[in-house]
Amino acid sequence: MRGLHLTADLFDCRDPDGLMTAGAPLVALCEQLARGAGLSVVGRYFHAFPPGAHGTVGWTGVLLLAESHLAIHTWPEQSAVTLDVFVCNVGRDNTAPAHRLLDALVGHFAPKRVRRQQLVRGIDNADA
Amino acid sequence: MRGLHLTADLFDCRDPDGLMTAGAPLVALCEQLARGAGLSVVGRYFHAFPPGAHGTVGWTGVLLLAESHLAIHTWPEQSAVTLDVFVCNVGRDNTAPAHRLLDALVGHFAPKRVRRQQLVRGIDNADA
Repeated sequence: MRGLHLTADLFDCRDPDGLMTAGAPLVALCEQLARGAGLSVVGRYFHAFPPGAHGTVGWTGVLLLAESHLAIHTWPEQSAVTLDVFVCNVGRDNTAPAHRLLDALVGHFAPKRVRRQQLVRGIDNADA
Repeated sequence: MRGLHLTADLFDCRDPDGLMTAGAPLVALCEQLARGAGLSVVGRYFHAFPPGAHGTVGWTGVLLLAESHLAIHTWPEQSAVTLDVFVCNVGRDNTAPAHRLLDALVGHFAPKRVRRQQLVRGIDNADA
């Protein structure tokens, strides 16, 4: 089992479509982009946090994929979003779909700053 | 927003309790360990994959936490498990609870080899 885990932490999001505080539109967008990237959605769970001091509602959610998962947490009071795309490469290399999904999501939030990181997951170099 | 993302990829799991192919007991264990580590579960979604060539059923699942999430994918045919614990440190430092949860889960699968990695998430060093 080998996999690729991409993360993106978004700051100063302009969020032109108001996705950070949206429920159904956010879920629909995640699913649409995942499928558009060629990944298979097998489940989803999204949870709204109670309104904060500014009255905004943040969301935390996940799409379970046949290839692993997409996780998203929105922080509207900080104009921040965290994204995770984890794909395992069983039967095919899902590197390109993972990048495609993450890039598309980042674009929808229109952040001014992005911190991207990645981990190679799996058996190579496993510790004894 | 600052956070810590811990991953552990487990290989040659002895899996003494048969958790890799369990449904409800796996969910219950994740919830029990998350709560025991002092984290707050706000949702869960687990999905079983169809039986593979060896007749075993793998699981993919997530606990949504007030602090972020726990994700687990089991690969019984490869005796492998991947674990993610992502916590954000809003209001308090969740570093110790995250390690406690991950360590406890790793112990239950009794792997012979573990690959651990971690990412500091959030605003420090954000790219322009």
